[in-house]
Amino acid sequence: MLDKARGFFITIEGIEGAGKSTCLDAISSTLAEMGINNPIVTREPGGTEVGEAIRAILLNSHYRGMSGESEALLLFAARAEHVAQVIRPNVEAGRWVISDRFTDASYAYQGGGRGLGAERIATLEKWAMPDDIQPDITLLLDVEPHVGRERVGKRKGEADRFEKEQDDFFAVVREAYLNRATAQPQRFRVIDANQSVDYVTRQVKQAIRGLIEQRSN
Amino acid sequence: MLDKARGFFITIEGIEGAGKSTCLDAISSTLAEMGINNPIVTREPGGTEVGEAIRAILLNSHYRGMSGESEALLLFAARAEHVAQVIRPNVEAGRWVISDRFTDASYAYQGGGRGLGAERIATLEKWAMPDDIQPDITLLLDVEPHVGRERVGKRKGEADRFEKEQDDFFAVVREAYLNRATAQPQRFRVIDANQSVDYVTRQVKQAIRGLIEQRSN
Ligand SMILES: Nc1ncnc2c1ncn2[C@@H]1O[C@H](COP(=O)(O)OP(=O)(O)O)[C@@H](O)[C@H]1O
Ligand SMILES: Nc1ncnc2c1ncn2[C@@H]1O[C@H](COP(=O)(O)OP(=O)(O)O)[C@@H](O)[C@H]1O
Ligand SMILES: [Mg+2]
Ligand SMILES: [Mg+2]
Repeated sequence: MLDKARGFFITIEGIEGAGKSTCLDAISSTLAEMGINNPIVTREPGGTEVGEAIRAILLNSHYRGMSGESEALLLFAARAEHVAQVIRPNVEAGRWVISDRFTDASYAYQGGGRGLGAERIATLEKWAMPDDIQPDITLLLDVEPHVGRERVGKRKGEADRFEKEQDDFFAVVREAYLNRATAQPQRFRVIDANQSVDYVTRQVKQAIRGLIEQRSN
Repeated sequence: MLDKARGFFITIEGIEGAGKSTCLDAISSTLAEMGINNPIVTREPGGTEVGEAIRAILLNSHYRGMSGESEALLLFAARAEHVAQVIRPNVEAGRWVISDRFTDASYAYQGGGRGLGAERIATLEKWAMPDDIQPDITLLLDVEPHVGRERVGKRKGEADRFEKEQDDFFAVVREAYLNRATAQPQRFRVIDANQSVDYVTRQVKQAIRGLIEQRSN
């Protein structure tokens, strides 16, 4: 039987248009098939009231000159609230928590894309979250920048501040994500997200089932 | 003659109701008397478009459960923009910049009031502003918490998230400010702001004149 004493913390990562939001349902339905209902589904930046207010600043394309430093500080401000108010209490209460993005995104976007480097992000991570909470599993939806861009282009509404970046920015972000996955192979599952929704969904379901079975043993 | 190659950076600090905003005019008029016109008058949190958006979050009393960590991260996010876009370029261009609050406020409010401690603030300061910019002079308007509170109570509008704190919080903030002043006596001028506006104005004018004369020699 599955030990329900502590919940699990699942994160989904990848560049714009990788299919992160799309695969949230697949995760929830896989959990339901395994008898785990009502997971907490959340996102970054955001996940709390103040976090959503910070998200609005971060995505506002009006602030296009914002420095990488400010971006990272805002993200960790939102994340500190998210961990304290949502992630930690729910996981400790035995709930499953699924977050559309988490700290790996700061390593990829600000550490990689904005050029701050992994070490500076690590310093900030330690500062903002001294009690250290890490995902139990991270699904990295790996997609080529032009494929992600074409998918996002079909979405309605104006592009946000990150979506307005070019393919070369996302190539660096993608590389930084893959470096994280290589360094922490136990936590990461890298999924080829250039493939069809069906293929990605199957891979996601398999990863989640594997996680639950591993835990039941 | 005054060397106009580089401007000066003046900051004003103190708890709510100390009289910071009130003394801005005294500083500007003293500068004008000395032949220095059109100083840049700015404030924290704020001073840039994104900084003012961050200020709105920080002061919103709806977010009263916000952690000290998030508060500090938001303040340094705003400050990094403020330094990069306003303070540094203007000082380098020979302008005088006067800021209603700066980094000392984070040592006092988050380091002291919120209990993070001076060391954690110093770590964040180094992270956010690796090129290190410090005020040439800091006027600390030192007031007893109950005096500041009574003054603020007369202001119109709802109290903001910080103004809603109690006297014991401001006693710790005040103490942390005074500790900074003791540790850096060359930069700080501590003014007894329990006194009348006239008295404080005279002290402020004297400090600014002293600064300019010192520089002219
Ligand atoms: N594997 C896929 N193949 C084709 N289109 C996809 C795939 N995954 C998602 N999409 C579509 O691409 C767009 C972006 O997907 P989304 O899940 O919003 O990405 P993200 O949340 O990673 O930015 C959506 O219109 C979605 O329907
Ligand atoms: N030295 C003083 N004595 C009496 N009242 C003062 C003095 N300095 C400022 N005030 C008044 O107290 C209130 C708060 O002053 P303000 O400059 O806004 O403080 P701060 O900007 O430090 O919060 C204002 O109504 C102001 O007119
Ligand atoms: Mg999405
Ligand atoms: Mg004021």
